[in-house]
Amino acid sequence: MPAGGVAARAGVVGALQGAVHARLTSKEFGGALGTLCDLRTGAPDAALSPREGDLLRPVWRRFRRARSLPARLVSETAEAASASQHAWAEARRRSDFKLLRPHLERIVRLKREAAACLGGAHPYDPLLDEYEPGMTVAELDGLFGSLKGPLVALAGKARGRGRRLAALADSRHDGPSLDIFCRSLASDMGFDLSRGVIARSAHPFSTGLHPTDVRFTIRTTGDGVMNQALSALHECGHALYEQSLDPRWWGTPLGEYASLGMHEAMSRLWENLVGKSREFWLGRWPSLRRAFPEALDGVSVDAALSHMRRVAPGTVRLESDEVTYSLHIILRYELEKSLADGSLAVRDIQEAWNELSRELLGLAPVDDRRGCLQDIHWAGGLIGYFPTYALGNLYGAQLYARFCADHPGWDARLTRGELAPLTAWLKEKVYRHGRRWPAAELVRRATGRAPSTEAFLAHLDARYAHG
Amino acid sequence: MPAGGVAARAGVVGALQGAVHARLTSKEFGGALGTLCDLRTGAPDAALSPREGDLLRPVWRRFRRARSLPARLVSETAEAASASQHAWAEARRRSDFKLLRPHLERIVRLKREAAACLGGAHPYDPLLDEYEPGMTVAELDGLFGSLKGPLVALAGKARGRGRRLAALADSRHDGPSLDIFCRSLASDMGFDLSRGVIARSAHPFSTGLHPTDVRFTIRTTGDGVMNQALSALHECGHALYEQSLDPRWWGTPLGEYASLGMHEAMSRLWENLVGKSREFWLGRWPSLRRAFPEALDGVSVDAALSHMRRVAPGTVRLESDEVTYSLHIILRYELEKSLADGSLAVRDIQEAWNELSRELLGLAPVDDRRGCLQDIHWAGGLIGYFPTYALGNLYGAQLYARFCADHPGWDARLTRGELAPLTAWLKEKVYRHGRRWPAAELVRRATGRAPSTEAFLAHLDARYAHG
Repeated sequence: MPAGGVAARAGVVGALQGAVHARLTSKEFGGALGTLCDLRTGAPDAALSPREGDLLRPVWRRFRRARSLPARLVSETAEAASASQHAWAEARRRSDFKLLRPHLERIVRLKREAAACLGGAHPYDPLLDEYEPGMTVAELDGLFGSLKGPLVALAGKARGRGRRLAALADSRHDGPSLDIFCRSLASDMGFDLSRGVIARSAHPFSTGLHPTDVRFTIRTTGDGVMNQALSALHECGHALYEQSLDPRWWGTPLGEYASLGMHEAMSRLWENLVGKSREFWLGRWPSLRRAFPEALDGVSVDAALSHMRRVAPGTVRLESDEVTYSLHIILRYELEKSLADGSLAVRDIQEAWNELSRELLGLAPVDDRRGCLQDIHWAGGLIGYFPTYALGNLYGAQLYARFCADHPGWDARLTRGELAPLTAWLKEKVYRHGRRWPAAELVRRATGRAPSTEAFLAHLDARYAHG
Repeated sequence: MPAGGVAARAGVVGALQGAVHARLTSKEFGGALGTLCDLRTGAPDAALSPREGDLLRPVWRRFRRARSLPARLVSETAEAASASQHAWAEARRRSDFKLLRPHLERIVRLKREAAACLGGAHPYDPLLDEYEPGMTVAELDGLFGSLKGPLVALAGKARGRGRRLAALADSRHDGPSLDIFCRSLASDMGFDLSRGVIARSAHPFSTGLHPTDVRFTIRTTGDGVMNQALSALHECGHALYEQSLDPRWWGTPLGEYASLGMHEAMSRLWENLVGKSREFWLGRWPSLRRAFPEALDGVSVDAALSHMRRVAPGTVRLESDEVTYSLHIILRYELEKSLADGSLAVRDIQEAWNELSRELLGLAPVDDRRGCLQDIHWAGGLIGYFPTYALGNLYGAQLYARFCADHPGWDARLTRGELAPLTAWLKEKVYRHGRRWPAAELVRRATGRAPSTEAFLAHLDARYAHG
C-alpha cells in the first residue's frame, strides 16, 4: 500500500467495522441469538448439542462486546488510533515520547471507558479478553509471576553465550535459491501450495483469507540465510494453522483460530522449538550448504546453532533472544495493567518503562526509540495484546513437550528431515478445533494440564543453562 | 491467489454482490431515489443542478438494472460463470470446444434472459450497456462497419512490415534496472508514487482502490525490454486515470471511470500512440541504452521501432499488432451480437469463428485453442465486453489527435522527454469528470466531434501505409 492510501483504507475498514457492529447489535440478530441462548449469561439452550453450544458461546461473547460498547466509543477509538499511529511514527523518528503523549492519553482514556462498559474482575480483563478470550489478570499474574524470576536468573547465567557469524547474518539472498529452500521446507511441514502462496515482502507476514487461500512472505531483501529460514518457519507455522481450519465451518467461530496466543504458539513452536534444534538442522544441512555455498561454506551445524542461540540482553523486543523475549512482554504487561486500573499515568510511562527495563533486562534504553517508543501497539489502540506473545511461548512449549513425550523416536525422525508427524498431531490437537474452546482449555485437552510455565522453563533450561 | 482459493473468492464476491443488489433494490433506496428523479425514466427533478443531475443518472441506471434483474438470475449467472471458467481452462488445455459448449449454452441462455428483462432496441444493447453505458448496436454497426474495410486493406498492404529483433524480444530483466526505468517513466507521466505502487506479477494489471491507492504491475520475469516498457505505459495509463479521479467524489459515479472503453483509451493512447512513436523513444534512448547495455547495444531507435511495429496477421488477439487488433474485436462483436439475438447457436460458434477469421484476418485458426477458445471472456459471462477494447482505440486516437492539434510544438517536447502536458490535458478533458457523461459525450466535449473512426484510421495510415 502506498503511504497516501492510509486514510482511505482506514475509512473502508471503519465502514466495514461499522456494518458488522450494526449487524451484531441489530434487533434481528439479538432476537435470533436469544432463541438459542440466555442473552445475559451466554448459557446455551439445553436442547442444543455440546458442539452447538461451543459454537454459540464465542458468538455470544462477540455480541455482548458489541452491545456493551456505544457506537460512538468504537468509532472514536478507531479515529484516535489512526491519528495516534501517525504521531507515533513521527515521535519514534525523533525519539521523543512527548509527541505521542497526548494521543496516548486519549487512547488510554477511551480504553478505560471501554473496560468500564464491558466490566470484569480487573479493568484490564476485558481488554485482554479481546485478544485472548477467557484469559484474566488473576491467571496472568500467576503465570508471569512464576516466569519472571527464573528468566532473569537464566538470562544472567546465559548472557554472552553464542557467537555471531557474519557469513550467516550478512548474506543477502535475492535470487531464487532461498525461495526454493523455503518452498521445500514449507512443503515438508505440510503447507499445501495449491491452497497457499509464498511471496516476498518488506516485512514478513502471513494471512489466511480462507483455508483454501493462505499466504505468507519472507523478506524481499536478504537478512541472512538463518534469519530467513527461521522467519519462514514462523510464518509457515501461522499459515499451517489457517490452512488447517475446517472449511465447512468457515465464517463461524469453529472455523477461526482459538486466540492470538494460540496462533503465536503455532508459529513460535516451529521457529524456536523445532527451528533452533540441532536435530532439525542436522537433516537439512547438506541441502542447505548446496543451496548457499557462499554463506555456508565451512560453517558447521554447531556454529550455526551457536549463532542462532546467542543470548545478549538488550532493550529492543524485536532484537531479543529466546530467553529474554518473555521479559520484554512482562514489562509491557505490568505497564498496561497499571494504565488500565489508573495506577500509572501516561506522563509517567517513560520513567516506569526504564525502571522495569533495569529490573528485568538489567539495562535501561539509551533513548525512547529503543525504549517506550519501540512498538506501535499502544498507539494503534492495542492494549491487552502483548501478553499473547508470551502465552504463545508457554502454550507452544507445553504442546511440543507433550508431543515429544508421546513420540519417543521423534529426535531421530526430525534428524531424517521428517516434519509431517508434528503437523498431523497439531492438526488433531489444535488446528481442527478452531475457536471451539478458549486456548487454555485447548491446551488442557491436548496436554492433560492447564497452561503452566513448566515446559517452557524446562526447555530453556535444557538449551541455555549449561553452555 | 492460489488455484485452490478460486471458489472461496467467488463465494465472497457473490456475497458482496448480493449485498449490493439487496441495498440497490431495497424500499429505502428506491424511496430516496424517487424523491430525486423519475424512477421510470431517470429524469432528474427539475430543482436539481446540472451536476446533481449528472451524478444521479448513472445511479439511476444501476438501480434500474438491479431492479429489472431477478436476484435468482443474478446468482445463477454468477454460479454458471464460475463453473464455466473452470470448464474453459480444461477445454482450452485440450483445445476442444465441445467441453465448453454446454456451459456456454447456459451462459448465453442466461444472458439472453437478462437482455429480455432489461430491454433495448437490439437484444445486445443492454449487454453492451453494462460495460459501455449508452453505447448501442446501431452506433457500433456504424463505427465498426466503417473500420472493417480500411483495416483489412491496410493489413494486406502492411503485412510483413517490421523486423523482429531477438535482442529486444528475448532479453530477460529480473534485476532492478527495469523497475528503475519503469518508475522513472511512470513518474514522468505524472504517476504519484506516494499514492501508488508499482510491483511485479505474472500478468500485468492495474487496480485503483482509491485515488490515493492505485497499483500497477509489470511482468515478474522479463519479456523483452520493449514489451515491458510498452506494458508499463499501458498499465500506467490505466493507473493515471484512477489516480486522477476526484477523491471528493469517491464512492459516487463522479469519482468513477466513465466506461471500460474510455479506460482502455487511456491505456492504449500511451501504449500505442505515444509508446510506438519515434519522438518518444528518441528522447529516452540514451538512458535506456545505459540501463540495458546487453539488450540495446548497437540497436538504433529505428530498429526498435521496426521491431515494435511489426504487422503479421495471426489468429490470436493477444499476439496481434496495432493494425489488426480491432479486426479481432469486430469478429467477436459480430458473433456476440448473433448469439444475443438468437441468430447464432453456441454449437455453430466454431464454424462461424473460423469463417469470420478467414474473412477479416485472412486465415483460420489451426485449432480451438488459437481460435474460439483463446479468450476467457464469454466463459466468464462477459458478453458485450469485447467492443470496449476497439472503442478504446477509437476514443484514444481521436483524443490524441485533438491534443496534438492544440499543441503545435508537441513532437519536439516529446522528443525532449516531456510527458506532463499530455497528462495535464487528459486530466482536464477526461480524468476529472469521472462518469459524469457517457464516454461518447466525453469524447464529443473534448474533441468537438462524436466518436468516429477517422482519427484512428488516419493514425494507422500515417504509421503503416507507407512502409
